[in-house]
Amino acid sequence: MIKVSVLYENSAGKKFDATYYLSKHIPLVKQKLGSACRRVEVDQGLGGAQPGSKPAFVFMAHLLFDSVDAFQKAFGPHADTIMGDVPNYTDIQPVVQLSEVKM
Amino acid sequence: MIKVSVLYENSAGKKFDATYYLSKHIPLVKQKLGSACRRVEVDQGLGGAQPGSKPAFVFMAHLLFDSVDAFQKAFGPHADTIMGDVPNYTDIQPVVQLSEVKM
Repeated sequence: MIKVSVLYENSAGKKFDATYYLSKHIPLVKQKLGSACRRVEVDQGLGGAQPGSKPAFVFMAHLLFDSVDAFQKAFGPHADTIMGDVPNYTDIQPVVQLSEVKM
Repeated sequence: MIKVSVLYENSAGKKFDATYYLSKHIPLVKQKLGSACRRVEVDQGLGGAQPGSKPAFVFMAHLLFDSVDAFQKAFGPHADTIMGDVPNYTDIQPVVQLSEVKM
């Protein structure tokens, strides 16, 4: 199993429309990726390790697929649609990472 | 549900003993946190969005709890033991974040 993580850094002066992201963007991603995407997790940053500190990331999304190939096949045909929707909710350039799920 | 994410940035010249981390550190964390920790996910970075690029994080761990309070009660008494084990596998200072699980 592999995980595609999309991390939005908590940068001063940047916008992030959580309502649009949760109610429009994530459903769009799920619809376009279809059943190849086994699970979607979305986390909203609360804070850092120190009480009262800011979270490093305002939002994180984690999408699970059977393999890198399965992700690429599902994402490729819809990449323009999905990436083209990003400016509708944020001007943060997300950090994207592919990982192998070890546990 | 809340998620505690521990992210190890992929920095040049830093060490990370994946074998120790997976076979000793994570089992120690699970044992100390007990049933308050509902789930543990561990991801090993494969790459970034661009083919052949390096992952932003060499490892990520995500620990799920019912609430911030449940996490603090479970982690507090064992913080020294758990954090004291970190130098046994890495010299990376992890990014720690608490998030609210939205999906």
